[in-house]
Amino acid sequence: MKYWNKRLQQMTEYIPGEQPDNLNEFIKLNTNENPFPPSPAVLEALQKACNGDLRRYPNPNAQMVRELFAKKNSLTENNVFVANGSDEVFTLLFRGFIEPDGLAAFPYPSYALYYTMAEANGIAYDKITLDKNLDIPFDEFLKKKYNLVIIANPNNPTGKGVPIDQIKKFCAKFKGLLVADEAYVDFYNETALPLIKEFDNIIITRSFSKSYSLAGLRVGLAIAHKDIIQGLIKLKDSYNVDRIAQAGAYAALLDERGFNYNISMVRNNKEYLEEALASLGFESVPSKANFVFTKHPTVSAKLLYETLKENKILVRYFDGPIQSEYIRITVGTMMEIKRLITVLSEIIKG
Amino acid sequence: MKYWNKRLQQMTEYIPGEQPDNLNEFIKLNTNENPFPPSPAVLEALQKACNGDLRRYPNPNAQMVRELFAKKNSLTENNVFVANGSDEVFTLLFRGFIEPDGLAAFPYPSYALYYTMAEANGIAYDKITLDKNLDIPFDEFLKKKYNLVIIANPNNPTGKGVPIDQIKKFCAKFKGLLVADEAYVDFYNETALPLIKEFDNIIITRSFSKSYSLAGLRVGLAIAHKDIIQGLIKLKDSYNVDRIAQAGAYAALLDERGFNYNISMVRNNKEYLEEALASLGFESVPSKANFVFTKHPTVSAKLLYETLKENKILVRYFDGPIQSEYIRITVGTMMEIKRLITVLSEIIKG
Repeated sequence: MKYWNKRLQQMTEYIPGEQPDNLNEFIKLNTNENPFPPSPAVLEALQKACNGDLRRYPNPNAQMVRELFAKKNSLTENNVFVANGSDEVFTLLFRGFIEPDGLAAFPYPSYALYYTMAEANGIAYDKITLDKNLDIPFDEFLKKKYNLVIIANPNNPTGKGVPIDQIKKFCAKFKGLLVADEAYVDFYNETALPLIKEFDNIIITRSFSKSYSLAGLRVGLAIAHKDIIQGLIKLKDSYNVDRIAQAGAYAALLDERGFNYNISMVRNNKEYLEEALASLGFESVPSKANFVFTKHPTVSAKLLYETLKENKILVRYFDGPIQSEYIRITVGTMMEIKRLITVLSEIIKG
Repeated sequence: MKYWNKRLQQMTEYIPGEQPDNLNEFIKLNTNENPFPPSPAVLEALQKACNGDLRRYPNPNAQMVRELFAKKNSLTENNVFVANGSDEVFTLLFRGFIEPDGLAAFPYPSYALYYTMAEANGIAYDKITLDKNLDIPFDEFLKKKYNLVIIANPNNPTGKGVPIDQIKKFCAKFKGLLVADEAYVDFYNETALPLIKEFDNIIITRSFSKSYSLAGLRVGLAIAHKDIIQGLIKLKDSYNVDRIAQAGAYAALLDERGFNYNISMVRNNKEYLEEALASLGFESVPSKANFVFTKHPTVSAKLLYETLKENKILVRYFDGPIQSEYIRITVGTMMEIKRLITVLSEIIKG
């Protein structure tokens, strides 16, 4: 393509899960969205923010969100960066926190956007394959001089979590920057947040897309040592998070009751889904997230994916080693899960 | 700073105009925001979008906005890219449409973010100083092999416009990519949009922040040959524009009556402001935008800026050659303009 630079020509495009325009046509269990809407308090705050003040630029640093998150987590606002989705944090890290000739590393399989974004920013990287138990082989990340490592915890698409002690040991040995992408952490019990006070080489990212039911709003966070946060602020576009998104994120952080209710519902449904899958003979990776990575001993993942799609149920299927044995199913509502299980049981019986 | 790469260490931070948290405390004429709120139809569409569907990711390409803008301008959707503010377009261009060792060029003075963003993306650039009449000396941009040129039309902070014929001649001779930043074009009468069909080396950017009164929402556009648009889509973060912003931009494009009313109000007020400034002895650059670049023969711009600020009126003052002779005043409401003129007249009388 004329005018594309080499990097753009060569990079692999990221293909997000299918997003049908008509949300009612499909049961959509393919992009780890929350099956329940944002809480009434959040929707009300959002509506209130749709006012004449929109003619004004937003606060450049989403100051109120920074302060509230910091207060809730016994940090200072200088440890918190608000982004247009956690994707923006990754892009900024590749641009400002690794030299153009540096080397990054990511587990494989993991969130494919890490690879895409490294390529889009011209950063070379290694993929470190998960071990036999689908765990992250941390020692492998110490064998070369990596400048930037991103792990998802819990990992996507496996749903496995890493205990904080293991991350702590790694940070102590590692000379580069470790990013722990905690997009799914609210469905888990362990966060690496306390490590921020101990290490200056860990960056934690969070998302409002999953546990806060706000995938449509695009808000993410980075939490790290204040020098890292200052660099992210220096590098970002001047107004990266819009007024309404700031209001929504603030309200979501405030509404702890709505949040806890949502999380417990998702956990209950996940338990039901895991049991129902087991009863059909599926082998699932024990999930710390809001999705289940599962395979069947007799029916291929690809066939499951395709047949479900014919039945208007979208789940995620990834090509490639390890991944292609599995489908990834987002935890839905009970009605969605029941329909899924009915169709799966028909497929399996042939 | 530990972990910052050289680029981040060395880049100059962009300082946006002051954004006081309490909007009622100041008369704010410093960031070229629209003095009038978004139209009722737009606010209603925004409020309607604050619903349970926010748990879903947005359409990755803001397809409805693309299609509507294309239809209104006799283009195809393949010519239109929707961005998280036009800032995002500039960043993507630096990342994907110029080699890391390429050379960019921008007029000076112009929108300072061009320089910042080039630095943030590690792209070297020349600043080409405006001629004596504050016009862009296009021939200077042909003297070296520039890969990417960005001009603002009308230019910021001068408010001067470039006739489309001049841009056309330039595109025909220029071997690189020309970006015409039309953030203020709706206050002007000439757009380079028709050139899209003729040249594959022009990219036009638009903003909803100024003429649509939606600075708080963060929506911008790029319009170009389909190969450029395809590259921007490949390079962008997967969900760059949120659901609510997409709904607001769509409604804003639909509501032509509200839009035309707003523009005519701003134009009337600008005329009044220019005349009132002239009567105080100010020399203003004839403005094609929603701001006036003006200087006084006896009182320095810096003193004007500082004294206005003491009087709770914010205008923009830029350090540096040419610029430091002027203040830039955004067109406000009649009440704001009258208060400004009263204070200015007191300052001038000493």
